[in-house]
Amino acid sequence: MILEKINNPNDIKKIPPSEYATLAGEIRKFLIESVSKTGGHLASNLGVVELTMALHLAFNLPEDKIIWDVGHQSYTHKLLSGRKGGFNRLRKFGGMSGFPKREESEFDAFDTGHSSTSISAGLGYAAARDMEGKTYKVVSVIGDGALTGGMAYEAINNAPNIKGNFIIVLNDNNMSISQNVGGVSDVLTDLRTSDRYYDLKERVIKDLKNIPHGREITKRLKRTKDSLRKRLLPGQIMETFGVTYVGPVDGHDVNKLVRAFNYASKISGPVMVHVLTKKGKGYTPAEKSPSSFHGVAPFDIQTGEKLKTAGPSYASVFSDKICEMAKSNNRIVGITAAMPDGVGLKRFSKEYPNRYYDVGIAEQHAVTFAAGLAAGGAIPIFGVYSSFLQRAYDQIVHDVCLQNLKVIFAIDHAGLVGSDGETHQGIFDISFLTSIPGMTVLAPKNGKELTEAIDYAVNKATGPIALRYPSGPASVKLEEFNSPIEKGEAEVIYKEKDIALFALGRMVDVAANTRERLKDEGFNVTLINARFAKPIDKKLIKSLAENHKLLVTLEENVLTGGLGEHVCRYVTESETDMKVLPIALPDDYVEHGSVKILFEESGIDPETVKKRIISEYNNVSDR
Amino acid sequence: MILEKINNPNDIKKIPPSEYATLAGEIRKFLIESVSKTGGHLASNLGVVELTMALHLAFNLPEDKIIWDVGHQSYTHKLLSGRKGGFNRLRKFGGMSGFPKREESEFDAFDTGHSSTSISAGLGYAAARDMEGKTYKVVSVIGDGALTGGMAYEAINNAPNIKGNFIIVLNDNNMSISQNVGGVSDVLTDLRTSDRYYDLKERVIKDLKNIPHGREITKRLKRTKDSLRKRLLPGQIMETFGVTYVGPVDGHDVNKLVRAFNYASKISGPVMVHVLTKKGKGYTPAEKSPSSFHGVAPFDIQTGEKLKTAGPSYASVFSDKICEMAKSNNRIVGITAAMPDGVGLKRFSKEYPNRYYDVGIAEQHAVTFAAGLAAGGAIPIFGVYSSFLQRAYDQIVHDVCLQNLKVIFAIDHAGLVGSDGETHQGIFDISFLTSIPGMTVLAPKNGKELTEAIDYAVNKATGPIALRYPSGPASVKLEEFNSPIEKGEAEVIYKEKDIALFALGRMVDVAANTRERLKDEGFNVTLINARFAKPIDKKLIKSLAENHKLLVTLEENVLTGGLGEHVCRYVTESETDMKVLPIALPDDYVEHGSVKILFEESGIDPETVKKRIISEYNNVSDR
Repeated sequence: MILEKINNPNDIKKIPPSEYATLAGEIRKFLIESVSKTGGHLASNLGVVELTMALHLAFNLPEDKIIWDVGHQSYTHKLLSGRKGGFNRLRKFGGMSGFPKREESEFDAFDTGHSSTSISAGLGYAAARDMEGKTYKVVSVIGDGALTGGMAYEAINNAPNIKGNFIIVLNDNNMSISQNVGGVSDVLTDLRTSDRYYDLKERVIKDLKNIPHGREITKRLKRTKDSLRKRLLPGQIMETFGVTYVGPVDGHDVNKLVRAFNYASKISGPVMVHVLTKKGKGYTPAEKSPSSFHGVAPFDIQTGEKLKTAGPSYASVFSDKICEMAKSNNRIVGITAAMPDGVGLKRFSKEYPNRYYDVGIAEQHAVTFAAGLAAGGAIPIFGVYSSFLQRAYDQIVHDVCLQNLKVIFAIDHAGLVGSDGETHQGIFDISFLTSIPGMTVLAPKNGKELTEAIDYAVNKATGPIALRYPSGPASVKLEEFNSPIEKGEAEVIYKEKDIALFALGRMVDVAANTRERLKDEGFNVTLINARFAKPIDKKLIKSLAENHKLLVTLEENVLTGGLGEHVCRYVTESETDMKVLPIALPDDYVEHGSVKILFEESGIDPETVKKRIISEYNNVSDR
Repeated sequence: MILEKINNPNDIKKIPPSEYATLAGEIRKFLIESVSKTGGHLASNLGVVELTMALHLAFNLPEDKIIWDVGHQSYTHKLLSGRKGGFNRLRKFGGMSGFPKREESEFDAFDTGHSSTSISAGLGYAAARDMEGKTYKVVSVIGDGALTGGMAYEAINNAPNIKGNFIIVLNDNNMSISQNVGGVSDVLTDLRTSDRYYDLKERVIKDLKNIPHGREITKRLKRTKDSLRKRLLPGQIMETFGVTYVGPVDGHDVNKLVRAFNYASKISGPVMVHVLTKKGKGYTPAEKSPSSFHGVAPFDIQTGEKLKTAGPSYASVFSDKICEMAKSNNRIVGITAAMPDGVGLKRFSKEYPNRYYDVGIAEQHAVTFAAGLAAGGAIPIFGVYSSFLQRAYDQIVHDVCLQNLKVIFAIDHAGLVGSDGETHQGIFDISFLTSIPGMTVLAPKNGKELTEAIDYAVNKATGPIALRYPSGPASVKLEEFNSPIEKGEAEVIYKEKDIALFALGRMVDVAANTRERLKDEGFNVTLINARFAKPIDKKLIKSLAENHKLLVTLEENVLTGGLGEHVCRYVTESETDMKVLPIALPDDYVEHGSVKILFEESGIDPETVKKRIISEYNNVSDR
């Protein structure tokens, strides 16, 4: 085993080139075995084994800086930088993160998680380096998917400001770009940019339609042209932006990659090395279906099948419901930013292809595009993860809510998401959405209520509305409680006295559990499904004061700017005589780990909540 | 006067083509006279007179939709759509907005204000139209500057999804792109993309350096190549993205423009019409200095000089201070997103060109670039308007604060900005910034304190910090109070009892004024400069309860998620026995008008605040 010799950083430099291919195979085997046990990102990591080896060989780490875009493909990098032992506890609480973390290792130059940030960060490093007269290398590794994000374009547009060497590695695992075909396409470009071409084209197409096989010929002509254009794309665009282009390079040939990196290192200013890789490389199930092996739960290596099965997720509840509604409502449009599977729009994309838009990793565009659709009379539904919606905050403020346009935000992965960690926790959306005028924010307590919430959003809401719900299986608890959804009205589930629990979304389950524990200890407890984080049910809160001493708000969001603060303010302003105990996540980022552990660590699990309530209630009663 | 015939929408269609040029001249005269009295945007509007006339002639408004990017160039559009009478009260409270507003006219298809949104919105309209089988035209008018925003790129990348006609008008008033020069540059592109070229280039440059005038020749070669590349840019990029390209067209020739638009209307799918215009056209002072006639206060038409002069702005205080600090601290880097004048980085750009970055209208990149700089050891200062920083919310969460990187946000135009209206009010930053873990938010009470805050940020702060201050002249009040800035510590200005005013930023002036009024009516009033919106001074708040019954928070931000709510929560949690009255802006957008009027309309002027406090205090005392 060559892999046994890889224990400390830069050990790879002692391996003879003749053994690179064997080592790559061993690394793949190691990754497949590790991830099959712990879960994690697989396909993307299998694709960059040789690329990462070459980076570690060609550069002088950690002095040189590698910045991984998104960062879920950094497993081989972690392995080669002395963290092989960390894979046992990959993505577990207290264990190794699945993303680069400066706090974890000096080999991780910049924390990532969201897409399209690496070029900006790399340019920052390069500018600081040049300013200080240092000479270390800076390398940003970005996938072709991440290039659909506008931020990457903003960065490339600014790359020529850097005078020293700056390397962008384009990890191209999608479009089949083989090589620069040169002059042929230039002629085409020439033709297409002249006005006469259009007249000609229109006439040719018209004529062709009238001859046998004419349509087929037209199609083929178009395909050839499109394919030529695609092959030229990276080089052409980069050169236009003033970035030197090198490539394409076979991304599974370590020696060729090292040579390309060495060459690129000598160029002044920004240079892009275009590397062709195959997602899932070396593991047949992942090669066949890279998207299902993007992020995976533990699985059986032989079959590729996932070991655990849970109930239907919120995403699948959402998926079924909007497909059903779209049958009778032809104004519904589904939008995703490159995550049809994750947000539950895959089925919709197949059943309603003309009303479905995958805009790429472009949340900003998605939101304003939705605003335009709404202005034009459609009912756009943007399915998106909470933490990625952060990208479109301004568009929600400026393009949607300002004009009171009815855009429906179906926000999945709201609250704690678990093993993806800090960058992916959806713990800010209540704060950033509720502070926007005109926005409605609704969090259903279970899967059934999500279907009713979608119905409400499509058929009753008159302006922008956000539905937020967690990742993972939809709750099936408390389904017997299903009062109709009315704007700003909470749902009283159990009406008692003394202590009222005012819980939002998944915290309704926690509150119900907490209530049982409190009742076991002899307390009277009212349970309310808050439903709306905005507007809050002021009338109900006011009325609770009649026979409750303590109102406990429970939400899966940071305390600052969340539901609890809004309730505190209302109770203060309205002089409602009732103590408020706001329970939420602390003012901090939450690391990776299972959702259960994170609930406990954050103090929002039923047992901790029970204790806090009893302590607070005893205080209040004493006075 | 032909202009006299332009009173109702589409009146321009009755004007004979021979009179277009005369009408354009009259419109310019009208705009110059109007704006010289009311203030407003000038240079951009003078540049698009003929372009707008042609749009109104070629299209069928309001059925067809025109979406103006940013929207400050929509004056001629307003004039031609029956709103000539509105110019008397342009940008005044209750008067005509300086931006397109759907509520103002059915000719305004989409509200704008921030940059780079128009293509996304237009694509939304076009998608809704195609879905409903309608045939109206959709035209997005975008400037070359706005194309530096990543959102515009995301949109263009998605444009080919639209099968029906969709027109992007590129209003190019900056880069001197004359015409597509064809093959010459193709040869260059060819050369530059082949590996051999680089070896050749390196060798040639090396050789040239050793012969007389060699360096000069190298420079010239590079200039020629760059200039060719620039001229090819729009057509090349658009075709690469699958957008049909038409142009360039003389943007000051109505007839040619109408022909181009008619032609473009017939094309299926997205088409870009590239129009060359001159900013400030027809008014010499504006032609000479378009940036100083971008947004203007009332001015003298003959000289072009501004009528009003106010004291030094916060931006100029900022400008002087960072230039002074940069002398002795060579790690300071200044960053702007296309607003060196507005944010006060012009002087810095001249004195420290190697440490200055204007990244274009690219706030997302700016923030992550700053994060990279900080990771690399620099001290980046991003000068930005509050409402534009909204664009970079995710980058602040994900790239700056998560890694606790010391990026300094110098946030100008925080709070109410006045006549630019809803899209430009900086009334959300306290909410969206304070909910981010690790962020410090400081608002100085006057210009002097801003200089101390910058000093604090550069020399003492250990993580990300935001300094927020308003547009317009810096306050020179209360300069005698200047206790040293310490993290999370408020400054007690006048210590009395009963009522405590806890005011942030510009609201310290309002609070001081309110205090005088309250004292005149016999109340005891403590005045505190809160300084920090995060972290808040809990110790001081707690201690106030000893001899105060009412704590009034004052901030220029929406109430939701702002300082007032944070204080309400703290007082609730800590069981501090003191009533809180949070005074802030209501949960709504704030329209255009003078800042003074907006303060009154929003209920945060001294007289209204005084009345609210007296009413609340009487309540509290009665109990």
